[in-house]
Amino acid sequence: MSRLITVAAAQLGPIEREESKDSVVKRMTDMMRHAHGRGARLVVYPEMALTTFFPRWHIEDEAELDSFYETEMPSAQTQPLFDLSKELGVGFYLGYSELFHDETGKKRRFNTAILVNQQAEIVGKYRKVHLPGHATYEPERPWQHLEKGYFEVGDLGFPVFRTMGGVMGMCLCNDRRWPETWRVMGMQDVDIVMLGYNTPVYNSVAAESPHLRMFHNHVSMQAGAYQNGTWAVGTAKAGMEGGVDMMAGSCIIAPTGEIVALATTSEDEVIVAECDLDRGRYIRDTVFNFDQHRRIEAYGLITERTGAVAPPE
Amino acid sequence: MSRLITVAAAQLGPIEREESKDSVVKRMTDMMRHAHGRGARLVVYPEMALTTFFPRWHIEDEAELDSFYETEMPSAQTQPLFDLSKELGVGFYLGYSELFHDETGKKRRFNTAILVNQQAEIVGKYRKVHLPGHATYEPERPWQHLEKGYFEVGDLGFPVFRTMGGVMGMCLCNDRRWPETWRVMGMQDVDIVMLGYNTPVYNSVAAESPHLRMFHNHVSMQAGAYQNGTWAVGTAKAGMEGGVDMMAGSCIIAPTGEIVALATTSEDEVIVAECDLDRGRYIRDTVFNFDQHRRIEAYGLITERTGAVAPPE
Repeated sequence: MSRLITVAAAQLGPIEREESKDSVVKRMTDMMRHAHGRGARLVVYPEMALTTFFPRWHIEDEAELDSFYETEMPSAQTQPLFDLSKELGVGFYLGYSELFHDETGKKRRFNTAILVNQQAEIVGKYRKVHLPGHATYEPERPWQHLEKGYFEVGDLGFPVFRTMGGVMGMCLCNDRRWPETWRVMGMQDVDIVMLGYNTPVYNSVAAESPHLRMFHNHVSMQAGAYQNGTWAVGTAKAGMEGGVDMMAGSCIIAPTGEIVALATTSEDEVIVAECDLDRGRYIRDTVFNFDQHRRIEAYGLITERTGAVAPPE
Repeated sequence: MSRLITVAAAQLGPIEREESKDSVVKRMTDMMRHAHGRGARLVVYPEMALTTFFPRWHIEDEAELDSFYETEMPSAQTQPLFDLSKELGVGFYLGYSELFHDETGKKRRFNTAILVNQQAEIVGKYRKVHLPGHATYEPERPWQHLEKGYFEVGDLGFPVFRTMGGVMGMCLCNDRRWPETWRVMGMQDVDIVMLGYNTPVYNSVAAESPHLRMFHNHVSMQAGAYQNGTWAVGTAKAGMEGGVDMMAGSCIIAPTGEIVALATTSEDEVIVAECDLDRGRYIRDTVFNFDQHRRIEAYGLITERTGAVAPPE
């Protein structure tokens, strides 16, 4: 038995602050055509794929800050992605910054991803749960990481969506480091976890070598894939962007935890893998047969307690 | 700041069914002396370190089955380990099969590990939570894996113990594959997770290459260490034992997820690493600062549900 879908990760090289969204969308549609030519029916773009990673700056002018967010989806600027999706029959995952006013008139901001099916319909939405960084300007940092200031914590949990022949899940960037992210989707029998990321090559607050940071990027996704018997597609925004070197290393990971496709540049680059959505079934039926082996009575601290508490001295 | 302790993994080569416990304990004390000579103050032995991995056989004779269990700790046979521990000032982790009669007279069996401090006092006990395998004889298997038949599910959770200068945690074999195991100890600010394992080189029920199984062994421990900023010491029972090839690959893993010491044989082998228990502090204070970043409101399914439930077709 096999359920095949060919999937692409469409890594984006740097997007400078001045680059227009039209220009970025053109780069993205070029990659969608390329991916389609290699057989892909599903393309995974990065987190905040339409703009530079603006949380690296402390932006005090609200209108300027707002310009990095999308207030409608699709918009005139993003419509070409949907048009090409429909023309080619290619679904996609898109990370972007979402802004709207709620029923009380309050301005709401989320770090969001949507899933679009092969008929160009939005079939799923996710809002980032694990916002890294800090909420207010920290002058001692070489660059800022203001996600906790520029976004609210996602309010949709980790939903999955049955579409395109499988059970599809989404997360964003820092979410990939947390085993809880993967497990909550694993508890819903997920087949592919899609995620985009924006990760600096260097740690801004601790000495940590770039090779170690790439290892952490990959090992988190590989463990998450294996431990839930799911495919994973991780797509980077890569290269020197706004003066900060951003990690590449986009990859497609099998349910065995093996990296089966890997980007080798820090530029716009399409990687493709043919994914059998049943490849992880033996894992979910044997070593990670949750129903047979999980012992939730021993897991209480995971959901009872937010922070770690050491035993008394 | 640093809190240094030199730790050893004392991998055991095969223990045949006929080998006496006295003989095994001699091998173990030899390795404790060797480890001490290399500076170790804490030695981690495998799971079921005193016997062959008997769940590979369907043993119908109850007296014969009982002979693989310890009814007291220490016993005359295991006393030499405690005597040498005291003489050398070396603590140890020991996996063994535990049998006792409870207050109702019922015979109880657990797959157990104890932690012994540098004064040879038992300071911690753990009983295996994630029992792999099956409960009854399955004739189609090339070898059995009757842990679910020979042991009860551990009833002590994943406790940690403040001793020997740090916060010490334990688990056993299959536990290492489950991110829940690591996280529950991470929620208690664990510094070192010790574990012994008995894992066949080949999967008895699915086609899976030995290199992939070794990768799964290591990636589970590396992710667990990194994602909780803890040291990990994994010690194998290795080599051809009872006709089944058992995976070696004993290792000591830093809180960065890096393997810093690795066994290269399938025999009795001591590996040693100097562990700074504060090495993981920057991880627990930054990327995995649980208090700042965890979002337990999104994790409910992890403790609400045992098995996976797919969305409706």
